[in-house]
Amino acid sequence: MNAVPGANRPRVPGFGDVVAAAARISPHIVRTPVMRSAAFDARAGCEVYFKCENLQTGGAFKFRGAMNVLLQLDPARTPVVITHSSGNHGTALALAARSRGMRAIVVIPRDSTRSKIAAIEAAGARVELCDPGLPAREKRLAEILANETAELVHPFDDPRIIAGQGTAALEFLSEIPALDLISTPVGGGGLIGGTALAARAVAPKIRVVAAEPAQADDAWQSFRSGERRAVSAPQTIADGLRGSIGVLNFELLRTLVDDVVTVSEAEIVAAMRVVLGDLKLVIEPSSAVPVAALLAGRLGGTGKRIGIVLSGGNVDLDACPFLAGVRLP
Amino acid sequence: MNAVPGANRPRVPGFGDVVAAAARISPHIVRTPVMRSAAFDARAGCEVYFKCENLQTGGAFKFRGAMNVLLQLDPARTPVVITHSSGNHGTALALAARSRGMRAIVVIPRDSTRSKIAAIEAAGARVELCDPGLPAREKRLAEILANETAELVHPFDDPRIIAGQGTAALEFLSEIPALDLISTPVGGGGLIGGTALAARAVAPKIRVVAAEPAQADDAWQSFRSGERRAVSAPQTIADGLRGSIGVLNFELLRTLVDDVVTVSEAEIVAAMRVVLGDLKLVIEPSSAVPVAALLAGRLGGTGKRIGIVLSGGNVDLDACPFLAGVRLP
Repeated sequence: MNAVPGANRPRVPGFGDVVAAAARISPHIVRTPVMRSAAFDARAGCEVYFKCENLQTGGAFKFRGAMNVLLQLDPARTPVVITHSSGNHGTALALAARSRGMRAIVVIPRDSTRSKIAAIEAAGARVELCDPGLPAREKRLAEILANETAELVHPFDDPRIIAGQGTAALEFLSEIPALDLISTPVGGGGLIGGTALAARAVAPKIRVVAAEPAQADDAWQSFRSGERRAVSAPQTIADGLRGSIGVLNFELLRTLVDDVVTVSEAEIVAAMRVVLGDLKLVIEPSSAVPVAALLAGRLGGTGKRIGIVLSGGNVDLDACPFLAGVRLP
Repeated sequence: MNAVPGANRPRVPGFGDVVAAAARISPHIVRTPVMRSAAFDARAGCEVYFKCENLQTGGAFKFRGAMNVLLQLDPARTPVVITHSSGNHGTALALAARSRGMRAIVVIPRDSTRSKIAAIEAAGARVELCDPGLPAREKRLAEILANETAELVHPFDDPRIIAGQGTAALEFLSEIPALDLISTPVGGGGLIGGTALAARAVAPKIRVVAAEPAQADDAWQSFRSGERRAVSAPQTIADGLRGSIGVLNFELLRTLVDDVVTVSEAEIVAAMRVVLGDLKLVIEPSSAVPVAALLAGRLGGTGKRIGIVLSGGNVDLDACPFLAGVRLP
């Protein structure tokens, strides 16, 4: 058991892994709908298709990767899994573990979205709080692993996770094969990595673009410089994208992704609200990042057919700038 | 041409009309998804299925009925259609007219939701404002019809409209056949009337329950007293349910619906927010009415399989108690 993320299974996954993951997980996940909005198309000046992973089990694409790992583990031999997560991967792993009869431990920074911490607990996992930042997460993880046996399921830098996340794009492109461009947010990079694997194989001419908050632009810096860079404790509302890109995912980003673009915090919030109004969907700030890039003209999409993976919908309603106000009884 | 609502086609529709409508309109409408939420189920104590007509063309079920009428009219003989509407039927008629190469005139009360008036104009209809209340609507309609020729498409008291609205329940029950109860909001009654027709034929043992704001309880009063009653200019946030139940729809309510229940304004707003959080969906206040009834225990649903038709998602984001706050650039 090795607690160093990305070091225990360093193989970059291939398209075959995505196909195998799809076959493995499809009975267990939601085949999420692809949605459109005439109002949004008029606003964007192109045809835009949204793959609604905010409607996935656990409210985010993360359940795909988590299920892909856990379906390859034997609960009798691996009764406990552990991870660190800013939220959605933790919930996904907890839900996947419960469905497999396993227990989950989730190390989560104290500054994580409150509702996400609550969701992880509600899904039956043991929550271990830690200080913000990757070093603190890894330290807490190592402390726990010193005292008990658990299989580490890294949130993004694991070929099984990347392959699982790629199944969303595989479904998307099988339903809408003529996309000119596909975009997803990039944080640790599991989603864009898996998406690039699927898109390059299924639609060789498609442009694949990663979108990132300017306030957490490690992937942008890494892509531009050609070497993997990290940002420490970035301040962005996109709480799912505060981590830095992983080793395997940087390799996929470098070789299979056409561009990385960035957006401002104000653009992220405005995009969330546009999606709420036009598509009647709640998306979390991370999901709004590629939408914001499109609306800012940074995907260069006018007249084209654009696909966006809406990565999740787990918003802390009380903390959102335009969702707060009414308390439930 | 007769401008008195409900008088020009007084026949109560039957299940055959719903089936014919489904065949007619299905190439033109969205087969909306049925969604669930584990969090919502836990909250409600039963299995709840949501038929998402908020994701229908125009953002409401109304497009079904409007298309069902316009597909039976010849654009060469009937180049102009007219209606009065608090919003969604107007948008639906405008969109349906545009798709059929016809023109639409929509008489709409000045106090209607601003974003709905804008949507009707954006859909290409001519908007004629009038004072609030049914008499003022009908007066303005008659004035216009005195000067020009147009076919009246009543928002709810027309057998073709009722049959069209019933297609949502037909799809719903074909996908989830084992529902114990189905509930929709009731305003003019087109949706509950069509739903009752479909449900009684397809699932004879199902309970059909209409839900209404207590502040606009004409259907509740009518159902209890056995004679059709109206309320004038009711004050409810559920802007789609301010009209009183129509003649044909009261007949369907009286004979095919099991119960009418009411909810408070606070319960409506709380239910909107629950759906936003649990299902990641924006629903308009009218749609939240059956959800509120369920959460208040008024559908008596514990342990059962409940189906709710989410009738629409057209919220004025700036006017909603918990959606306001951020302005778009």
